Amino acid sequence: MIVQLEGQHSILPALKARQRKFKVIFVKASARKDQFAEVLAEAMMQNVPVKYVSAAELDKVAHGKTHGGLMALCGRKPANTFAELGDILRKSAQPPLLLLLEGVEDAQHLGYILRTAEALGAQAVLLKKHLWGFDETAVARASSGAYERLPLIAFSEAAEIKQLSRFKIKLWGCLANVKRTMYEIDWTEPVALAVGGEKRGLSGKVRAECQGFVRIPMPAEQATSLSLTHAACLLLGEAARQRYMKQQNLVGAKHSFQH
Amino acid sequence: MIVQLEGQHSILPALKARQRKFKVIFVKASARKDQFAEVLAEAMMQNVPVKYVSAAELDKVAHGKTHGGLMALCGRKPANTFAELGDILRKSAQPPLLLLLEGVEDAQHLGYILRTAEALGAQAVLLKKHLWGFDETAVARASSGAYERLPLIAFSEAAEIKQLSRFKIKLWGCLANVKRTMYEIDWTEPVALAVGGEKRGLSGKVRAECQGFVRIPMPAEQATSLSLTHAACLLLGEAARQRYMKQQNLVGAKHSFQH
Repeated sequence: MIVQLEGQHSILPALKARQRKFKVIFVKASARKDQFAEVLAEAMMQNVPVKYVSAAELDKVAHGKTHGGLMALCGRKPANTFAELGDILRKSAQPPLLLLLEGVEDAQHLGYILRTAEALGAQAVLLKKHLWGFDETAVARASSGAYERLPLIAFSEAAEIKQLSRFKIKLWGCLANVKRTMYEIDWTEPVALAVGGEKRGLSGKVRAECQGFVRIPMPAEQATSLSLTHAACLLLGEAARQRYMKQQNLVGAKHSFQH
Repeated sequence: MIVQLEGQHSILPALKARQRKFKVIFVKASARKDQFAEVLAEAMMQNVPVKYVSAAELDKVAHGKTHGGLMALCGRKPANTFAELGDILRKSAQPPLLLLLEGVEDAQHLGYILRTAEALGAQAVLLKKHLWGFDETAVARASSGAYERLPLIAFSEAAEIKQLSRFKIKLWGCLANVKRTMYEIDWTEPVALAVGGEKRGLSGKVRAECQGFVRIPMPAEQATSLSLTHAACLLLGEAARQRYMKQQNLVGAKHSFQH
């Protein structure tokens, strides 16, 4: 299957990550020489054909309006599998921090989750296989390059999740009405956190694989729940906070506030 | 100006918040009697005319596909001003927690920020006046009701921000390359946090009103920055965490993790 990537922010990280097979890169003929220098250098190194076309031709085939004079045709980014998890984790100096998603409403949200997960130190995101029909162009654009770099592991059966225990990774599920808050568990250990879709939450099968559940305490009682991407952001943020504090030797230390 | 609200999730909170003038509510004639019971009861209480129309008629005028048989015409939600800030803050049992936004890319993002800000305990969001041309239907839908409930204060001059000091509110700006992390300041005090747009960041004029700056520490160096809504989410999340800990008398206490 051929995917169309649009704009430098999508294409450059995709080239650099070297996960996709590039067929061709289309460049607006009237672009300034230096505008796409980095993309063109990568293309040359990787022997990707470059074709110069008119702005009108680009506009005709582009899905969005943000191509900015650059478009590429390439293969889908290959999905990772649980079998590769060991290799993925070995590349990181940090203890495992994984995010498992059971439901995502749209491609843009998936892109934002990947961007946030990468920024906050997750080494991989686990995604149910039936969610893989997403619009890759939209995911790539919203992820701001994270989609290209962050391993996405497809799983079809909840039972596959059991493999996390091989890496001593504990799976915590996020639910609304449990007693334990996300502040009460130690995220500096090898952990994975499972977040369900906004409508259905976590399935019974994934819950059965969780070793426990946490909630995000929210001061506003009348507020509706957080969106999926922001719930995941807060969970990963707490993990990042604890890991940062530990690294700085601030765990348990009474923190001196600066006013 | 007349705004079109679509779907129960937008219309019900708007009715309940009583901030807008409703002209009419259109209901799909073939809807189940109990489906919109709460909306219809609110409409009756507030003397809002209800008109039953065919599904085809609704589809013809609706902007989106998520009206689900319900549409309303109403006035814009009135913007709040700094003059009302005292009243807004008095309604809350918590110390002030405000979010100031200088740039938002699109209406959906604004909606998500409002939803997150409300859930995490902000009493109001301050928004530059030139950002008020947003598509209110899209903001309302993405905010999941928060747009109706959370006061939005419009300001045109950065100098207006000085009024925060009347309420002993300290303004902290979020910047990428400063030394102080967001973990180092006391968010349990009356605080406002300023977040700039993804492209331009905070303007010099707003920076001049900040009493200091903080960054969000990120473990992944190669990752691009967080999106605006997720950066705001993490800042508000840290405020919510500190306030929760203080409420539970957990500040400074060495927290016992549960494994």
